[in-house]
Amino acid sequence: MKRKTIAIDMDGVIADVEAQFLLWYERDYGVKMTKAELIGKTDETAFPEADAIRKFVTTPGFFLTVPVMDGAVEAVKLLSEKFEIYIVSAAMEFPLSLSEKLEWLGKHFPFISWTNIIFCGDKSIIDTDYMIDDHLKNLDFFKGQAIMFHAFHNVEHTHHIRVDNWDAVIKLLKDV
Amino acid sequence: MKRKTIAIDMDGVIADVEAQFLLWYERDYGVKMTKAELIGKTDETAFPEADAIRKFVTTPGFFLTVPVMDGAVEAVKLLSEKFEIYIVSAAMEFPLSLSEKLEWLGKHFPFISWTNIIFCGDKSIIDTDYMIDDHLKNLDFFKGQAIMFHAFHNVEHTHHIRVDNWDAVIKLLKDV
Repeated sequence: MKRKTIAIDMDGVIADVEAQFLLWYERDYGVKMTKAELIGKTDETAFPEADAIRKFVTTPGFFLTVPVMDGAVEAVKLLSEKFEIYIVSAAMEFPLSLSEKLEWLGKHFPFISWTNIIFCGDKSIIDTDYMIDDHLKNLDFFKGQAIMFHAFHNVEHTHHIRVDNWDAVIKLLKDV
Repeated sequence: MKRKTIAIDMDGVIADVEAQFLLWYERDYGVKMTKAELIGKTDETAFPEADAIRKFVTTPGFFLTVPVMDGAVEAVKLLSEKFEIYIVSAAMEFPLSLSEKLEWLGKHFPFISWTNIIFCGDKSIIDTDYMIDDHLKNLDFFKGQAIMFHAFHNVEHTHHIRVDNWDAVIKLLKDV
């Protein structure tokens, strides 16, 4: 029987870009902030310096050194026993990120084959059974079962199944 | 009404890798061969030096300098008036090719938005109405209408609609 497929996003889902934003903000602007302070904000309003995030994501090394999301490696490894896992990242907006993201995946998720990695622009032509993502622009037009991973910018939206962390993903998918 | 979508492959479809193989083979091995001599061969049997193609595709500059397939720019531009065009390339096998392919697309197909570019491993989760590709491994499992673009390695296969060049693509799709 064909295994069910899951498209898993990188930034904000297996890569903890929020943590990286906070680290780099403190490093570059000398202001230490917390994840709690970002809740309900957008990329533009998250920090006092409005263009900080845009600057970070276009700086060499940002995607290469982003911390792994808590529990992501173990959870993706566990899910890959039962599901066909695809890593699907909207990397095309930042060309510099392509090689960094591929290197990062090879380092932290070496068990994901190159055949199952997709770097795209929009995700509208991705056809899997499940999609785990933090962005409405990807989840809203997805034809399979959308699963919204918690992020500071999506807390006000309630029209998708929400998971707060990787433990919640495992609980949600353990019986399907 | 939602526009119909086409996934268009790069190597062998909009990028004339056969021409590039012949150019590089003459340059590196001093033997001039023709496209006609490659007909019916595979990547491994195409040239007297069996590992030449493998060597070429892992050499910096190969994908950056590959000639555009005859008629591809004009045809893709014409099709994009009616269809939503996605460029879908199995670039993950050769990490070096990622940035070269993106630069090549920006140079020769600047009218294709970054939102419509996909670099992947296998193409099994790509969901479009049409797929124009030269490889059976991509076309055989495609759920939409597969269109096989002529290549030296696919001449013996007859179970997909075949197009010999970009004029034939235009003729095929002009009334759908």
